[in-house]
Amino acid sequence: MNTAIILAGGVGSRMGVDRPKQFLMVQDKPIIAYCFEIFQKHCDIDKMVVVVSDEWQQYVVEIAHKYGISKICGYAPAGKTRQHSIYNGLKCIDKNASDTDIVIVHDAARPLVSDEIISDCIKGATEYDGAMPVITVKDTVYQSADGSKIDRLLKRSELFAGQAPESFKFKKYYQIHNQVTDEEIENTAGSSEIAFRHGMDVRMVKGSERNLKITTVEDLESFESILKGVK
Amino acid sequence: MNTAIILAGGVGSRMGVDRPKQFLMVQDKPIIAYCFEIFQKHCDIDKMVVVVSDEWQQYVVEIAHKYGISKICGYAPAGKTRQHSIYNGLKCIDKNASDTDIVIVHDAARPLVSDEIISDCIKGATEYDGAMPVITVKDTVYQSADGSKIDRLLKRSELFAGQAPESFKFKKYYQIHNQVTDEEIENTAGSSEIAFRHGMDVRMVKGSERNLKITTVEDLESFESILKGVK
Repeated sequence: MNTAIILAGGVGSRMGVDRPKQFLMVQDKPIIAYCFEIFQKHCDIDKMVVVVSDEWQQYVVEIAHKYGISKICGYAPAGKTRQHSIYNGLKCIDKNASDTDIVIVHDAARPLVSDEIISDCIKGATEYDGAMPVITVKDTVYQSADGSKIDRLLKRSELFAGQAPESFKFKKYYQIHNQVTDEEIENTAGSSEIAFRHGMDVRMVKGSERNLKITTVEDLESFESILKGVK
Repeated sequence: MNTAIILAGGVGSRMGVDRPKQFLMVQDKPIIAYCFEIFQKHCDIDKMVVVVSDEWQQYVVEIAHKYGISKICGYAPAGKTRQHSIYNGLKCIDKNASDTDIVIVHDAARPLVSDEIISDCIKGATEYDGAMPVITVKDTVYQSADGSKIDRLLKRSELFAGQAPESFKFKKYYQIHNQVTDEEIENTAGSSEIAFRHGMDVRMVKGSERNLKITTVEDLESFESILKGVK
C-alpha cells in the first residue's frame, strides 16, 4: 500500500494575497487541485491523506469533490512546523500497515511533479529505506553564519537540493517520529533529514527544475508560463 | 573608475538550440542586449569589457551598435572556464588603475539584474574588498560525494546562493590571478571563491530571485514571463 501525504497546512503567503499559496487560482483552478490530479491518476498511489488547517479543510473537501479526487482517505490537522504536519499525516495512516508499505510526502504547492519522479521515489523507498528527488545546485553556495561574511566555501559538485515528494518505508519512518523529542521534530528542515539522522538509508533520485515549490510571485509566474507551454 | 566585465563566452547551450543562450532572441531582442542596456544606463558604470569567443565577437559588435551601447571599451577572448574568461577580461582593463578602481563581473545570461543590486555591489567593493549578491537557499541542501547516498546535512539558514554581478577592488583581484596557478583558476567555481580563498574581504549583499541566470528552457520561460509582466 502506497499512501501519499499531501501537505496543505501552510497558512501564510509571501505573495501579499488573501490565501495560502496552495489555494491560489491559476487558470481557474486552485494550485492544490493540480497536485491532487497527479496523485489521483498515478497508478502506484493507493490513498492520500491531506494535512490542512481547520479553517481550510471544508474548502479542500469541496475541491476534492469538484475535481473527482476519490483517493483521499483522511484529513489531518496542520502542525506548527512542516515536520509536525508530516507527523500528523503519518498518524492518520493505517497502523496495521505492513513492513513494505510506503508513504510519499508531497507539498500541495508543488503542482508540477512528474509521474516519473513519483515512481522513482516509490521504487527507491522499496529498494532502500527511502528516496527523494534532488536537483543539482546551479549557483555557487557559500556558508555564512551572519549572512554577510563568508565562513566557508562548499564544493558545488557535491551539493544537491532536495525536492518533494520524499518517500519512506512507512513503519520505520513513523517509529522515528514516535521516539524523538518534539524539539527534534521542530528543528527538522527536510523530511529526509530526520530519516537520515536516525540511520535510514535514503537515496537521491533525479528531480526536475519543473518540480518547483510555489512560494513567490516569480514561482507563480513560472508555473503559469509552464502551464501555457504545456497546453 | 568602475568597469563591468560582461561574460558572453559560453558557446554551449543546454536548450538544444543553434546558439549560446546569451544570444537567444526574446521579444525580438538578444538576451545580451537586455544585459548591456542595464549597464549602459547605470550611472555608476563607466566602462564595459565584453568577453566573447572569436566566432561571436562580430555579432556582439553589431548588437552593441544596434542598441546604442557606447560604454564598451574592449573585447577579450573567452577562456576555457568562466574564471579564465574573467581573467582575460581583467587583462583588458587599464593597468594604470588606481587602488579604488572597481571591477564588476556579470553574466550576459543574467538579463534581469536590478540597478540596486549593481549599486550595492559597487558600494560593498568600495567599503570592503568585494561584494556579491546572494539569495537564501530555499530548498534543503544535502551533501553527497556520489550523488546517491547522503553524506552530510547542511544548515539551511547558513547557506547562501551566490549570484552575479560580483564586484571587487580591481588591483587586489587582478593580482591574485597573476599569482595563482592555472589549475587554481580552472578549479574556481564562483568568482568570489578565489577572492575569499586569498584573503579578500568579500561581503554578501541582497540579491533577487528575479536576477536569474538563463541556462534552461524553464529559465527562458521565466524570463519571458517576467518581461511580459514588466511591460
